[in-house]
Amino acid sequence: MSTAKLTINLDALVTNWQNLNAMTNCETAAVVKANGYGLDAGRVAKALAKAGARNFFVAAAEEGVALRRALGPGPGISVFSGHMEGDTKLLKEFQLTPMLNSLDQMLRHFETLPGHPFGVQLDSGMNRLGMEPAEWAAVRDIALGQGPVLLMSHLACADDPAHPMNAQQLRVFREMTDGIEVPRSLAATGGMLLGPDYHFDLCRPGVGLYGGEPFGDALPVVQLDLPVIQLRDVEPGESVGYGNAWVAQTPARIATVAAGYADGLQRALTKGDVFAYAGEARCPIVGRVSMDLITVDVTALDQVPASLTLLNEEQTIEHLAQAAGTIGYEILTSLGHRYARTYQG
Amino acid sequence: MSTAKLTINLDALVTNWQNLNAMTNCETAAVVKANGYGLDAGRVAKALAKAGARNFFVAAAEEGVALRRALGPGPGISVFSGHMEGDTKLLKEFQLTPMLNSLDQMLRHFETLPGHPFGVQLDSGMNRLGMEPAEWAAVRDIALGQGPVLLMSHLACADDPAHPMNAQQLRVFREMTDGIEVPRSLAATGGMLLGPDYHFDLCRPGVGLYGGEPFGDALPVVQLDLPVIQLRDVEPGESVGYGNAWVAQTPARIATVAAGYADGLQRALTKGDVFAYAGEARCPIVGRVSMDLITVDVTALDQVPASLTLLNEEQTIEHLAQAAGTIGYEILTSLGHRYARTYQG
Repeated sequence: MSTAKLTINLDALVTNWQNLNAMTNCETAAVVKANGYGLDAGRVAKALAKAGARNFFVAAAEEGVALRRALGPGPGISVFSGHMEGDTKLLKEFQLTPMLNSLDQMLRHFETLPGHPFGVQLDSGMNRLGMEPAEWAAVRDIALGQGPVLLMSHLACADDPAHPMNAQQLRVFREMTDGIEVPRSLAATGGMLLGPDYHFDLCRPGVGLYGGEPFGDALPVVQLDLPVIQLRDVEPGESVGYGNAWVAQTPARIATVAAGYADGLQRALTKGDVFAYAGEARCPIVGRVSMDLITVDVTALDQVPASLTLLNEEQTIEHLAQAAGTIGYEILTSLGHRYARTYQG
Repeated sequence: MSTAKLTINLDALVTNWQNLNAMTNCETAAVVKANGYGLDAGRVAKALAKAGARNFFVAAAEEGVALRRALGPGPGISVFSGHMEGDTKLLKEFQLTPMLNSLDQMLRHFETLPGHPFGVQLDSGMNRLGMEPAEWAAVRDIALGQGPVLLMSHLACADDPAHPMNAQQLRVFREMTDGIEVPRSLAATGGMLLGPDYHFDLCRPGVGLYGGEPFGDALPVVQLDLPVIQLRDVEPGESVGYGNAWVAQTPARIATVAAGYADGLQRALTKGDVFAYAGEARCPIVGRVSMDLITVDVTALDQVPASLTLLNEEQTIEHLAQAAGTIGYEILTSLGHRYARTYQG
């Protein structure tokens, strides 16, 4: 057994959803795109549905199909990328609700699936997905006549509460939707933390469910344990790993553990301070992260356990993200497919 | 259809193996760990077996099991991480050959699987996997009495032909193995390019097969096409994407394409010059790579095709690696699981 073990705490995930839900007076959905941020959209959604979540969001129709198969009929599944060419059959057969992003998508939807539920994604300034204000003004009467189930938009800078873009997007979204008797949604995790002005009728947290910033009170959801394949003692002057990137200054004991960048532990991790934990003792990662292996300085340990822990309550996805110069979202969605996965809860 | 399309050219992969094979007078195996560098170990190995490859290397016994199921009986499958606790049954049942890395592993192997084929991994200086010279000196007679099928080691700096570490590891490996009548292997792709002194009886290329450096003559093996979800025109001063990271200086047309860091296109890509291709025309990526989406400046195009190409013969995994500050290996092994995959050849 030289594959690492990823433990996913669905109880913690449910608690995160409940705590986010308690912050609002509106419906709380859940974003489970990218296969539930890498943790298995089906399992994540089933746990949240049991806790009361009724609506889920995915990126593409294909993800919606997989989720519907896991969830069965009942819960709503919405597709951010809308109604693309080739999606029609999937949307119909698997009862998926596209968030229409453009006039093209709207025409396609009304022509091919008249009466099939849809939402409209509006662009309030991020310029990534959704209808522009002028485009929306031109078609809104037609669109509203078809009975959309949701009008939504997405914030570009919600992770930074002080950013003036937040209030600007809120203003644009309200200008586009005020007075319309259709449920509205603007906030993902970051937007929920901006306060009730941003909540409207439905909030749709993603990263906060999975233990990531900007939801500072989130419980960590993942633990990652890496089996020790081999121990060796090195003398001062001996190098470890590719490119001789680390050289022992004093006699040291090195553990080689099984996981590497092919498992989503980016090479860039070595730029920062990352530790492998033996209980509460922390051991520095040394040398380069390679494809399947990482080397750890375990000199300080009296006894080296059979595995060392890379993600736990002390060192979270946010710590790894900081070390690698990225965000927790990317650490999560990169967690690899070789891990033996265990679900708790 | 808003999932991107990854096309894997198995003919090019086979050509790369043949060209590497032609550089030596010894056997050429193939490294297919990390699920064939992310491209499907079973398909890759089957294509190479048809072309004449007889031995394959994986990182862990679990990978060997999956590969044996795909390949069927016959070809050799070797496991770099050796014989770990819990591996015994898998090694036996699926005819896997562990590369024993330590005295512990050796004892485990001889006790639990006497007579079962094994190799020995020796540490010639990388200090990551393999037996140290002193350890090997102590047990080599016992080990040789059990009939290993291979003695191997791995180079730490082979990507840099001028690095003195190469000659030093070669010397140590020879000191540990000269005069022993067992097949030897030192070189992966980089080592093969260092010349015949490094070839011994078996070379085991990995990244070169898949189109990556340091094998400069490698044919690209992957093409990645990203469907355009939406087009929009932005005015000077308008920002695009998260954090308002890109602001239009002149009127621009922006395409939002479906793929992001959850598909292995790292956020760090935006640090460098990366383009999305429309035929031969190249369009700059603008704004931040987000989880499922990338925004592209397509202002220069007369007509925007239904999809834009991120990996092709012009822009390879090495270009993306350079932009993201990593190596082609990491770009390859990160290629995501949402892509619709097509195999050619």
